[in-house]
Amino acid sequence: MKGLARYFPILEWGREYNAATFADDMIAAVIVTIMLIPQSLAYALLAGMPPEAGLYASIAPLIVYAIFGASRALAVGPVAVISLMTATAIGRLAEPGSIDYLTAAFTLAVLSGIFLFILGLFRLGSLANLLSHPVVTGFVAASGVLIAASQVRHILGIGGGGENFVAIVVSIAEHINEINIRTTIIGVGTIIFLFWARKGLKPLLLKAGMKEGAAGMAAKTAPVIAVILSTLAAAYFHLPDKGVAIVGDIPRGLPPFTPPSLDPELWSRLAGSAALISIIGFVSTISVAQALAAKRRQRVDPNQELIGLGASNIAAGLSGGFPITGGFARSVVNFDAGARTPAAGAFTAVGILLAALFLTPLLYNLPKATLAATIIVAVISIIEAGALLRTWRFSKSDGGAMAATIVGTLAFGVEMGLVAGVVLSLGLHIKRTSAPHCAIVGQVPGTEHFRNVDRHAVVTNPKIMTLRVDESLYFANSRFLEDKVYALVAAHPEVKDFILMCAAVNDIDSSGLESLEAINQRLKDSGVTFHLSEVKGPVMDRLKRSSFLDHLSGRVFLTQFGAVSLLDPETARATLAAAPDLQFQVERGSPMAAK
Amino acid sequence: MKGLARYFPILEWGREYNAATFADDMIAAVIVTIMLIPQSLAYALLAGMPPEAGLYASIAPLIVYAIFGASRALAVGPVAVISLMTATAIGRLAEPGSIDYLTAAFTLAVLSGIFLFILGLFRLGSLANLLSHPVVTGFVAASGVLIAASQVRHILGIGGGGENFVAIVVSIAEHINEINIRTTIIGVGTIIFLFWARKGLKPLLLKAGMKEGAAGMAAKTAPVIAVILSTLAAAYFHLPDKGVAIVGDIPRGLPPFTPPSLDPELWSRLAGSAALISIIGFVSTISVAQALAAKRRQRVDPNQELIGLGASNIAAGLSGGFPITGGFARSVVNFDAGARTPAAGAFTAVGILLAALFLTPLLYNLPKATLAATIIVAVISIIEAGALLRTWRFSKSDGGAMAATIVGTLAFGVEMGLVAGVVLSLGLHIKRTSAPHCAIVGQVPGTEHFRNVDRHAVVTNPKIMTLRVDESLYFANSRFLEDKVYALVAAHPEVKDFILMCAAVNDIDSSGLESLEAINQRLKDSGVTFHLSEVKGPVMDRLKRSSFLDHLSGRVFLTQFGAVSLLDPETARATLAAAPDLQFQVERGSPMAAK
Repeated sequence: MKGLARYFPILEWGREYNAATFADDMIAAVIVTIMLIPQSLAYALLAGMPPEAGLYASIAPLIVYAIFGASRALAVGPVAVISLMTATAIGRLAEPGSIDYLTAAFTLAVLSGIFLFILGLFRLGSLANLLSHPVVTGFVAASGVLIAASQVRHILGIGGGGENFVAIVVSIAEHINEINIRTTIIGVGTIIFLFWARKGLKPLLLKAGMKEGAAGMAAKTAPVIAVILSTLAAAYFHLPDKGVAIVGDIPRGLPPFTPPSLDPELWSRLAGSAALISIIGFVSTISVAQALAAKRRQRVDPNQELIGLGASNIAAGLSGGFPITGGFARSVVNFDAGARTPAAGAFTAVGILLAALFLTPLLYNLPKATLAATIIVAVISIIEAGALLRTWRFSKSDGGAMAATIVGTLAFGVEMGLVAGVVLSLGLHIKRTSAPHCAIVGQVPGTEHFRNVDRHAVVTNPKIMTLRVDESLYFANSRFLEDKVYALVAAHPEVKDFILMCAAVNDIDSSGLESLEAINQRLKDSGVTFHLSEVKGPVMDRLKRSSFLDHLSGRVFLTQFGAVSLLDPETARATLAAAPDLQFQVERGSPMAAK
Repeated sequence: MKGLARYFPILEWGREYNAATFADDMIAAVIVTIMLIPQSLAYALLAGMPPEAGLYASIAPLIVYAIFGASRALAVGPVAVISLMTATAIGRLAEPGSIDYLTAAFTLAVLSGIFLFILGLFRLGSLANLLSHPVVTGFVAASGVLIAASQVRHILGIGGGGENFVAIVVSIAEHINEINIRTTIIGVGTIIFLFWARKGLKPLLLKAGMKEGAAGMAAKTAPVIAVILSTLAAAYFHLPDKGVAIVGDIPRGLPPFTPPSLDPELWSRLAGSAALISIIGFVSTISVAQALAAKRRQRVDPNQELIGLGASNIAAGLSGGFPITGGFARSVVNFDAGARTPAAGAFTAVGILLAALFLTPLLYNLPKATLAATIIVAVISIIEAGALLRTWRFSKSDGGAMAATIVGTLAFGVEMGLVAGVVLSLGLHIKRTSAPHCAIVGQVPGTEHFRNVDRHAVVTNPKIMTLRVDESLYFANSRFLEDKVYALVAAHPEVKDFILMCAAVNDIDSSGLESLEAINQRLKDSGVTFHLSEVKGPVMDRLKRSSFLDHLSGRVFLTQFGAVSLLDPETARATLAAAPDLQFQVERGSPMAAK
């Protein structure tokens, strides 16, 4: 049971299921269903798919996630970024609206599902860590801008397209003479209404006597209000006859079975996009899932989450949908509305299914501009300008990776932007560690502690030099360390003992070992004894597997104080006995100083 | 003057030049010239170039290197690995022997020279550090095997080819019926002679009354003896008429001016290979140059070396040659023979020029099998089986990168092998740091020192938990740390204070900061106070640029002992006063124990 439950979380929460959890889940499901209907239609539009594909993508995947998913509050379905990435990936291969385009979308969902599923089976969830925080923040912001820009043509009722920001802007400029004033009024009106609703609707409902929680929930249904009002307006004023693009006929019925293409050519052309979509989808899902789980002191297993998300995507691809993932806004609503188990997701699926069966004729007159407006408002509100600024202030290197992601995404599209960000952040990390911070250290009076001579008033013996190297010794920095040591020893001919303080050396690889051997030999030739101090257990274990310790001219000291105590007992003891440096003591002890 | 001398090292050593250095350089030049003639011809063969190209590649580049080169003892010219990489790169684009092939080789040399030159100008010599020691060792070994295998057909006198080991072996099997017995006798005979000469020739010469140094030098001329003897034998027995392939007509004359192709298509197809050739060439050059410089307490500036090597390659490409670099064996000979300045290289160039002008008719009957034999013996002797084994024993991860390089090189050729090795070693480094070693630490009795509770007999207070994380906190491991801390705190409900000991945290990026903030918030919610200790100066500077320190529930302690002294003064003082743990003292103090 335990073993099976690991792969089927439903076996765990299913056993405790009762009337109370059922009621909680049902309420959450109703609210999420209402919220999800316009979102499903809108993101289908964004992905270049027919509207019903958005509904289908919100039925089978939700049921499958309820069985395999690791998070109890996550609401999966079509989301903005993944829909844009889908459009980018398959827009290269087929004309939107064509059969080939649909097949490519189904296949992409299945491929991405298989990819996630395999990552989960092999417990490779940690791969997602390659997406650093700045890259994700930058990517979300830039793709938000890109998505908003891509929807402007629906707001204006013009044609065109474009995969990157410049192309979109150029395309808008080229088609600006096609502008439809009625479409624009609906689109801009909806945007204004939705932005107002985010701040103004809840206080209004509270004033009208609604309770705090209910008012908050109801305010989230603003897109539904916009959908109803604009659909009614379109029907009443015969707007479709006046050039306002509407959703039109949505076939009624159950989700179809849609087998993916088995063409290896198509698979190979979609593989890269599927991988990117999977990783971005997983990263956004897992961060939402973990944040919500933490609020209830629960944990989410990332690898099980991969399996759940993978199975859901396969289900999406097989049932007329397109790639899906966990949505931030709807998961928060689901959680706030009191969803207790993934069953809430299954109930939502039933709600959407009912909509697909009975509601679609009512959506005939829904203007596309309304959907575009809901997309624009949704994506603009997830751009965290504050986080972008904070990252930039905190570290120029992280800021650089973020900027590269943003510029790459806007200039070359989502895929290039993401790849640029990941490659640059890896490269910058390697670069940072390839020239590590090094400090010559001395003993802090009154303590056994050693600190940087440039930052603290410390005691040193000119004949003994201690260098603390603040990085693991590995191939990218081993030559740097050699050069550093040689330069120091050359500049200080009085030095007789050179101690490499390894408190911050977390690993030594073959290249690092090679450098240590070279340093040892070179110092020996110059009449300087080479010691190590504070070598960590795992690093010591590794050194013992080489012959380095046999050739070492000096010793390996367990502590830096021990090293100095042996090489120069007088100074070491005297410094320890000395009156402690007051400034140091204050910083160390005071509750205020170091903060 | 100082500024100019930086880019023209000749201005520095030229001023001190005198009769004594001239004599030393001349002697070295004569010996290197004798050694270089058969090597130049052999490596031209390996590169798929006509024999005279090998001579040309050993004239102009040597003179240019004498002007720009940073090393005083390095001997540049055609070398085995670079010649094989040249053949691989241009063999894809043109038929060996064709005009296109020659043009591609000239262009490749110029491109690779420009690449090196630019790296030098922008002082990017540290890029070479991306080639870790295991990758270089593995690459040299595998390409040695590949080169030796590629020469087998010349030894047997058969046709064929192949870019990877399997293809070469298959090709040999397919052509085995073409075997020429006379060619085989010459080839195998030369191999046996050369291997014997490496061990047996010097003792023989010593016995004959030669002095130690002279005998060593003379033994290195074994390939020249093989060339002379086999050429005489081929002429005497009319071997060319009996199917033995010979070098044939080598045009006499000065190196021609050969303009590179300016076709952008060709440039773009050669760019990747040029980059790989440049980096491999630079890495082997700089390690030889630095090793030799160290013996005379000199230093080699890697960036100037890039400029020197770049200029030499441009010269090679413009004067009928192909890509060149510093040769290990010939540089050691040059050094041992007493070369004092790069002028020795220029004198060698004059020697090769004389050979190109007057000696080539004598080489008409030189069997190709002899040249192939010199190549095989040279490359097999640079394979360091011991280094391969040591690397494998020292670290499975380094061993893995090495194995990938070897397998990749043998299975897919030199370029793929190199790329596979670099990518894998970077990936493994990221993987290692993404799940860092963590240790719960306690105070070592009698000291202010804190060590892993699992490795040492230390004192802890159950209400205060200190975790030492042995890695910088960055995007690849930030989530790992979060999970670790949450799991520890969940497992130890008695903990009231949690200290993160940051002695080994060398950097914190935005993702790491995000995790620290999350940990602080989560611990605060659980009623645990979160402290940091031993935060390094640069890391503290960075934290101060965020608002983390304002929200931190606990404090930042300068030392771990200070932290415990404040949180639990009684235990801290008592432990410090306690009789020191003998085992620990012995390990720390004894000259023997820790070694």
